[in-house]
Amino acid sequence: MSLILASASSSRKMLLTAAGVAFTADPADLDEAALMVKLKDAGAQIMARSLAEQKALAVSRRHPGRTVLGGDSVIAFDGDTLSKCASLEEARALLARLSGKTHLLVSAAALARNGALLWAHASPCEMTMRDLSQEFLDDYLAQEGKAILSSVGCYHFEGRGAQLFARVDGDYFSVLGLPLLPVLAQLRKEGLLRS
Amino acid sequence: MSLILASASSSRKMLLTAAGVAFTADPADLDEAALMVKLKDAGAQIMARSLAEQKALAVSRRHPGRTVLGGDSVIAFDGDTLSKCASLEEARALLARLSGKTHLLVSAAALARNGALLWAHASPCEMTMRDLSQEFLDDYLAQEGKAILSSVGCYHFEGRGAQLFARVDGDYFSVLGLPLLPVLAQLRKEGLLRS
Repeated sequence: MSLILASASSSRKMLLTAAGVAFTADPADLDEAALMVKLKDAGAQIMARSLAEQKALAVSRRHPGRTVLGGDSVIAFDGDTLSKCASLEEARALLARLSGKTHLLVSAAALARNGALLWAHASPCEMTMRDLSQEFLDDYLAQEGKAILSSVGCYHFEGRGAQLFARVDGDYFSVLGLPLLPVLAQLRKEGLLRS
Repeated sequence: MSLILASASSSRKMLLTAAGVAFTADPADLDEAALMVKLKDAGAQIMARSLAEQKALAVSRRHPGRTVLGGDSVIAFDGDTLSKCASLEEARALLARLSGKTHLLVSAAALARNGALLWAHASPCEMTMRDLSQEFLDDYLAQEGKAILSSVGCYHFEGRGAQLFARVDGDYFSVLGLPLLPVLAQLRKEGLLRS
């Protein structure tokens, strides 16, 4: 009985697959925007963790007896919590705002079974962007295109997005969307991975 | 005039390519084992940095006017400095030795031009392995096969190797073999990447 991933995120799928974790994906269908509004005063760590929990819980109700992994990522910057951008114009404005500054990226994971929470974890990463020139931004947006709209923060850190950063303090897997080492540890405890 | 990478390492190539850095590869042909013996009392950081420098310098003499990137990774554990293993038997013995303990993995990079050093950097990472069972090790070695012999430490952290670790303190790119963010910053200073 393999793990169920309550996410359509290609980077979460990629991380689990690369690490040798067997799973099937059944994305949760939550109104994330509404949940984020409800949690807007809670801070990024509680918000990301709550969203990961809600996804895992919702999907676990559809699959009795199965272990379900939910994940979520949220960015906190200058008093705001940010999610994905809807257009390249929004992406440009966001990146210009983040340029030369440090934002907090939180990725969270949760495990649930039969509508009950088993475990949750949030991993904060401090992401410091260098000063981005207009020419660099033009180039970056042209090369990356709409693909970056699938990520909070509008960067794929595992790709050209690394060029945006002067410094990163935090776990790389969490930057990509999943605190992989704590997830693997918990999957071993739950008997879903060999110890 | 793109960068020259003085390395045959597939992970260094992969990291640069993913980050959008144009380069051609011309691996250095040094007697690394002899250099490691010579530097054996220097410590892992100086050893990795010196090897990266020697590779960049040697290849830069073959390509006048071009900027050359050298890289190296060394593991320090229990008073020893370790390089690659020659067989799966050696790999099993090494992993059993590292199991449940913390080792230091240092990746270094250096830039050279016309036989002169421009810049060098070493990035240490503390890698804490969990206790690995015999069954896990059997499984891991069977699944990964001789591919792991291409890495110091006998793990691909970007793949199933993540299952070996309880905790990692350090830069992910450096764990994979190249301190990418400092390299990108230096390539921007040298005019090889847009700022």
